Amino acid sequence: MLKKIPVQISPDLMKTLMEMGHGDEILLADGNFPAHSYDKKVIRADGLGIPELMEAILKFLPLDTFVKTNVFLMDNGLEEKPKIWNEYVKILESSGEKYSYEPLERFKFYERCKNVFAIVATSETALYANVILKKGVVIK
Amino acid sequence: MLKKIPVQISPDLMKTLMEMGHGDEILLADGNFPAHSYDKKVIRADGLGIPELMEAILKFLPLDTFVKTNVFLMDNGLEEKPKIWNEYVKILESSGEKYSYEPLERFKFYERCKNVFAIVATSETALYANVILKKGVVIK
Amino acid sequence: MLKKIPVQISPDLMKTLMEMGHGDEILLADGNFPAHSYDKKVIRADGLGIPELMEAILKFLPLDTFVKTNVFLMDNGLEEKPKIWNEYVKILESSGEKYSYEPLERFKFYERCKNVFAIVATSETALYANVILKKGVVIK
Amino acid sequence: MLKKIPVQISPDLMKTLMEMGHGDEILLADGNFPAHSYDKKVIRADGLGIPELMEAILKFLPLDTFVKTNVFLMDNGLEEKPKIWNEYVKILESSGEKYSYEPLERFKFYERCKNVFAIVATSETALYANVILKKGVVIK
Amino acid sequence: MLKKIPVQISPDLMKTLMEMGHGDEILLADGNFPAHSYDKKVIRADGLGIPELMEAILKFLPLDTFVKTNVFLMDNGLEEKPKIWNEYVKILESSGEKYSYEPLERFKFYERCKNVFAIVATSETALYANVILKKGVVIK
Amino acid sequence: MLKKIPVQISPDLMKTLMEMGHGDEILLADGNFPAHSYDKKVIRADGLGIPELMEAILKFLPLDTFVKTNVFLMDNGLEEKPKIWNEYVKILESSGEKYSYEPLERFKFYERCKNVFAIVATSETALYANVILKKGVVIK
Amino acid sequence: MLKKIPVQISPDLMKTLMEMGHGDEILLADGNFPAHSYDKKVIRADGLGIPELMEAILKFLPLDTFVKTNVFLMDNGLEEKPKIWNEYVKILESSGEKYSYEPLERFKFYERCKNVFAIVATSETALYANVILKKGVVIK
Amino acid sequence: MLKKIPVQISPDLMKTLMEMGHGDEILLADGNFPAHSYDKKVIRADGLGIPELMEAILKFLPLDTFVKTNVFLMDNGLEEKPKIWNEYVKILESSGEKYSYEPLERFKFYERCKNVFAIVATSETALYANVILKKGVVIK
Amino acid sequence: MLKKIPVQISPDLMKTLMEMGHGDEILLADGNFPAHSYDKKVIRADGLGIPELMEAILKFLPLDTFVKTNVFLMDNGLEEKPKIWNEYVKILESSGEKYSYEPLERFKFYERCKNVFAIVATSETALYANVILKKGVVIK
Amino acid sequence: MLKKIPVQISPDLMKTLMEMGHGDEILLADGNFPAHSYDKKVIRADGLGIPELMEAILKFLPLDTFVKTNVFLMDNGLEEKPKIWNEYVKILESSGEKYSYEPLERFKFYERCKNVFAIVATSETALYANVILKKGVVIK
Repeated sequence: MLKKIPVQISPDLMKTLMEMGHGDEILLADGNFPAHSYDKKVIRADGLGIPELMEAILKFLPLDTFVKTNVFLMDNGLEEKPKIWNEYVKILESSGEKYSYEPLERFKFYERCKNVFAIVATSETALYANVILKKGVVIK
Repeated sequence: MLKKIPVQISPDLMKTLMEMGHGDEILLADGNFPAHSYDKKVIRADGLGIPELMEAILKFLPLDTFVKTNVFLMDNGLEEKPKIWNEYVKILESSGEKYSYEPLERFKFYERCKNVFAIVATSETALYANVILKKGVVIK
Repeated sequence: MLKKIPVQISPDLMKTLMEMGHGDEILLADGNFPAHSYDKKVIRADGLGIPELMEAILKFLPLDTFVKTNVFLMDNGLEEKPKIWNEYVKILESSGEKYSYEPLERFKFYERCKNVFAIVATSETALYANVILKKGVVIK
Repeated sequence: MLKKIPVQISPDLMKTLMEMGHGDEILLADGNFPAHSYDKKVIRADGLGIPELMEAILKFLPLDTFVKTNVFLMDNGLEEKPKIWNEYVKILESSGEKYSYEPLERFKFYERCKNVFAIVATSETALYANVILKKGVVIK
Repeated sequence: MLKKIPVQISPDLMKTLMEMGHGDEILLADGNFPAHSYDKKVIRADGLGIPELMEAILKFLPLDTFVKTNVFLMDNGLEEKPKIWNEYVKILESSGEKYSYEPLERFKFYERCKNVFAIVATSETALYANVILKKGVVIK
Repeated sequence: MLKKIPVQISPDLMKTLMEMGHGDEILLADGNFPAHSYDKKVIRADGLGIPELMEAILKFLPLDTFVKTNVFLMDNGLEEKPKIWNEYVKILESSGEKYSYEPLERFKFYERCKNVFAIVATSETALYANVILKKGVVIK
Repeated sequence: MLKKIPVQISPDLMKTLMEMGHGDEILLADGNFPAHSYDKKVIRADGLGIPELMEAILKFLPLDTFVKTNVFLMDNGLEEKPKIWNEYVKILESSGEKYSYEPLERFKFYERCKNVFAIVATSETALYANVILKKGVVIK
Repeated sequence: MLKKIPVQISPDLMKTLMEMGHGDEILLADGNFPAHSYDKKVIRADGLGIPELMEAILKFLPLDTFVKTNVFLMDNGLEEKPKIWNEYVKILESSGEKYSYEPLERFKFYERCKNVFAIVATSETALYANVILKKGVVIK
Repeated sequence: MLKKIPVQISPDLMKTLMEMGHGDEILLADGNFPAHSYDKKVIRADGLGIPELMEAILKFLPLDTFVKTNVFLMDNGLEEKPKIWNEYVKILESSGEKYSYEPLERFKFYERCKNVFAIVATSETALYANVILKKGVVIK
Repeated sequence: MLKKIPVQISPDLMKTLMEMGHGDEILLADGNFPAHSYDKKVIRADGLGIPELMEAILKFLPLDTFVKTNVFLMDNGLEEKPKIWNEYVKILESSGEKYSYEPLERFKFYERCKNVFAIVATSETALYANVILKKGVVIK
C-alpha cells in the first residue's frame, strides 16, 4: 500500500495504466466475461466490482478528448438499460474528466475488445456491466 | 466465476489451496505486511479484507487436528488485542472446523512466515491483522 | 485435496474452469484424440474416464442457456450411437443444468475444437467419446 | 495412448521413470501428502489411487538389489498397520521383482522424501499410504 | 533405462509418442534432412540409424487403419528405389501392424512434413531414407 | 504518463513501491554504485539524479516510524559531508514524513544493501550520494 | 557509467543501437505516445526529454545517406509547427550528420512506427514531439 | 577451444552448423547489415571479418550440389564489383567444394535473407560483403 | 551432419565440449547411472555405447597433462576388472593423447561426479562402465 | 556498428561494462580458461585476442584508484614471465588510466575469479594470458 493510491489498484494494474498511451483502451470486464479468450494481458481483480475500480482508475487516467466517444458500454438490447450504468455516469461526472459514452451491441462490443490494451477481470455480478475506457493525453 | 466458488477466491488462489497438503500453512497478510520480501509464492488480493477471504477459504480448507494449534495470529503486545480477532473467531466458529489459535509475538510471527506455503497479500487496513492457517487432512 | 472438490479435478483444471467465461468451451477428449495437435491448453487426466470427470466438472460449471446447443458430441456416423452417450445424458440430467446436445460429424467436430478454451486429455477408452461443454453465466 | 503402456502412466511420468538411474527413488504420495512443499519435481496424478499406479510402474521399473531395502512405507505408529499395505505386498509379489520393505516413522519418512527423484501426487484416500520405490539396475 | 523399453527410445521421444493421438504423424528423418527448418518439435537421435529406431517405435505405436496409407516414404525418382526400403518393409511386416506405404516425390514429401507432430533427427546415412508413420487407434 | 504521477517514476518503479511492505528498504544508488552486483531487483533510472527521484517517491512512500532511523546515508568519512545531503534534508522536510537519518561508514552501508528490497540505479554524479529509505505503515 | 558515454543512454539502449543495422529506424516517443501497443522492443526512459536523448544518440548513430529522408517527424497539421522541432534541427545540425527530415501526418506516422527497430519511451511533455531516426552506414 | 576446430567458430555457431540440413542457408553478414531485423537466429561474431569465418566454416560445411547456385553475393550494382569477392573465390577454390555463385541485386538479396537458417553478424567493414552459403549433403 | 564430425557427437555435445576449459571434466555415464540426480548439465545419448562416443570425443578433446591423472574409472571392487576397460585403453592409445587413468571406488567416483562440467547419458549396457575425462590445454 | 565504438566490443559486452559499478571486476580470459565453470555471466569473444579487446575496453572503462591494485595477472611461476604482459603494460600506459598490476599465483587467481562481475571468453592462444580489470569511478 502507498499513500494516495486506492487499494483497489493492484501493483500490476498501476504499471499497466502507466504503460498505456494516448488512444489505448482498457476493458473493465464483469465476472462472466470471457477475459482469457482474448489474446490480451489480463489483470485479475477477483472479489471486486467495477464501480469501485472505475472510480479508483479515473483518479489517474485521463479520458481521450480527441475523439467523439471515450467510454464504451455493452448494450443489453432492451429498453431498460442496465442499472449499473447510472453508477458509471455518476463516477464519470465526479471524475472531472470530459466524457461521452456509447452503447455497443454485444457482438460489436466483443469485436472492439480485440484491440484493447488490457482487460481487468473483475467479479462484478451485474449483467452487461462491461465498460471500456479510452486513455487521453496528460498535459504537464 | 463458477457455481459454489466465492468470488473472493481467485483461480490462482484455488489452485494453490488444492496443491497444499497436510501441515502446509497459508498466510493471509494485511496491507502493510512485506509479503514480497519472503521467498514464497505471493497471491495478490488487492482491494479485499482478510475476513471475507478467510470465510471463503474455510469453505474448502480443513484445519489440522494432528497438532495443538492450527491458527496463528500476530500479537500487538498490548492488553487490548486487535478487534479484528473477534471477527476471526466468529468465522472460525461458523466454519465447522475444530480450531485453536495462538498469538505470536511480532518477530516470532515473521519467523514462522519463512516456512509458509504461500502468502495472500490482501488490502486489509486493520493493523496486526495477519493470520496463518494450517491445513489438515481431508477424509473421503 | 480440499473439502467439496472431487479428486478428479486437478488444481490446474480447476484454475482453468475458473478462468473460463460466458461462451467459452472445454473439450473432454478420449484417449485417442490428438489433443496436443491443437494450439490450445492441454490438461492431462491420464487414467481417468470422461463420465467421472464430466460429473465432477458439472458441479461447478454452468451450461450456456443463451444458445440453442451447449453440449457437442462426436458422431460415429452409424445408426447405433456410442453407448457412452447414455451415460452422458444421465450425468447431464442429474446436474440440474438446462442442456441440449448436438452430434457433430467427425471432421466438423475437429473444426469446432480449434476454438475451444482448453482440452482435457483423458484416458477414456470408449471410441467416439469426445464431448464439448459450453460455459454459461453464473448469477449471484 | 500407446500399445503396452498402462493408461495410468502419463507421458511426463514415463519420461521421469526413464530418466531415473540406479539408486534413485520415487515417492507415490497419497492425497493428503504435502507434495509441493518439497523442492522436487511433482507429477500430478489426480483421481488415481496408489495401487493401480504402483502396479503400472513396476511393469517397467526394476527395484534396487544392491541394498537391503528397496521399498519404504510410512508407518502409522499403531499396532494395526494400514490395510493398503496388503495390497502393496500383493503387487510387489506379482511384479517379479525381488523386494524388501521397511516401515519408517512419519518424520523419518518426511526426511527421506527430501532426497527423492520425483513425487507422484495421487488422490489416494487411504491414510498413511505413502510409499517410496528405489530403482535398480537394468541388465540387457 | 527401463525394463521392456528399447534403449534407442529416449525419454523425450517416449513422452512425444505418448502425447500423439489418432492421425498424428511422426517423421524419422535421415542425417541430411533439414529437421530444424520446420517449425516442429525436433527430437535429436544422433548416432542412430532409422531401422533400429523404427523397430523400437513400432513396438508401441499403432498404425492408422482408418486411412488408405499410414507410411510415407521419400521417393528418389529413380527406377531403383532406395535399398533401405527393404529393411523398412521387413520391420513393418514383423511389427504385426496392418500397413500400407506410399512413395512421395521429394517436394510433396517436404510439403507433408509441415504438418507432422514431431521430427526425429537421426544420423541415418542412407540417402532418401526419410519415412513418416501415421498413428492409429489404441483399443483397450 | 498518468495524472498525479511524477514522470520520474517509471511503471516498474511504481509497481515495486506498491509491492514493498512495512520495514522494506529501497536504495537510491548513484551512478558509480555497483547496483548489479547485489542479488537484488535493479530498476534503471539512467539520466536522472537522486533528488528529483527522492522527491517523487516520497509523495507516495511513508517512512517507518516504528524504528529509530528510517533514512541511511553513505558517509564519506570526512569532516565536510557531501553537499547533496542538504538537498536530501530539504526534500525530507517538505515531504511531511517524520524522518531521522544516520550516516553509515562505506562498508557498513554496502553490508546493509544486501537486504534491501530493490535498487534504483540512477545517474547521480555526486559522490557518496547513495541513500536508503525504509518504508512505514499506511494508515487508511 | 562509462567514460565518453552520456548518462542518458541506458545500457539497454546502447545495446540496441549497436544491434541496429543500415536502414533500421528508432522511434523517440513522447510521454503520451502508446509505445507498448506496437509489437516492438520498448526501452523506457522515464523522466527524460527527447532533445537530451537525441543529442546523446547522435554521438554514436550515423544517419542513412542512401535515402532521401532519414528523420521523420509527427506533424500537428497546423500552420505553426511544434516548437520542439527547432531544437531538433539544432541538434541535427551540430551532430555533423547529413540529415533531411520529413513531417508525416499523424496516422501515416503511426503506420511507419509499425516497422521500427525499437521505441524509446521518454517522458517528453511537448505534444507532437515524436521523431524517428534512420540508421546509416558506418565506414571504418 | 578444441583440437581441429578453428577459433573463429564459436560454440553456438558450430551447434548451428550441425543442426542445418540439406538446402538450408546461412548468411555471413557484414557489420552494417541489419541482422537483428530478420526474424532469424543471430550469432554474433563481433570483431571478425567474413573471409576468416568463411574459410573456417567451409572446413565443415559441404555446399549443395543438387542446385545450380550454392553461393549468393550482394551486388553493388556497379561495374567494379566489391574487391572482397576475390577473396571469397580464393577461399571457395581452396575449400575443395564444388561451388557456383550468383550476384543478387540488393533488394533481392534482402528478400532471400528472409528464409535463411541463421545469420552470423560479423564486423566485416568492406561494403556489399554479405554472402549466403547453401548447405549440401554429407556422404559417409 | 558436417564433414569431419562423427555422427555420435550431437550438436549440443559439441557445443559443450567447446565451452569446456582447462581442467574441466566430462562424465560418460552408462545406462544405469543416475545422471539426472546431479545438478549438472545432462546430454542424452540414448542408444549409444561409451566406446564409440569416447573415440569420437577424443578426436577433439585434449587430455590434461598438468596433472597426474586425466581419466577416472569406476572400480567394481573385484579382482577381475570390467572388460570394457580394455576397449577404453585401446581408444586412449590410438587417440595420440598422453593419458593416465585411475580407478575410483564407487562412492568416491560419485563424489567426483559432483564437480563435472557435464554428463553424457549413454545407453552403455556394460556395468561399471562410467568414465571421466579431464580436459587439457589446446596449443595453437 | 556505431561511430566511436571499436568493433571488438559486442553489444552485450558494452551493456555489461555499462552495468558495472565502482569496484566491480571483469576477467578477460584466454582460450583455455574454464570460463563456463564459474557461476558468472560469460560473454563469448571467439576469434579475438586479449590485447585488442583490452585496448578497446579501456577507452571506456576507468580503473579503480581507491585501491592499491586495479589489474590482476595470472602468474606462470617462472622467472620468465609471459611475453604478453609487455603488450598489456603498453596498452595500460597508453590508456591514460592510473594503473598498478599484481601477479597472482594460478590458484589464487582462480579464487579471485569467483567474485568477478563477468568473464569475457576470448580465443587468446598465449598461455597464462588471463587478466582482471577493476572498475573505478567516473567523474562527470
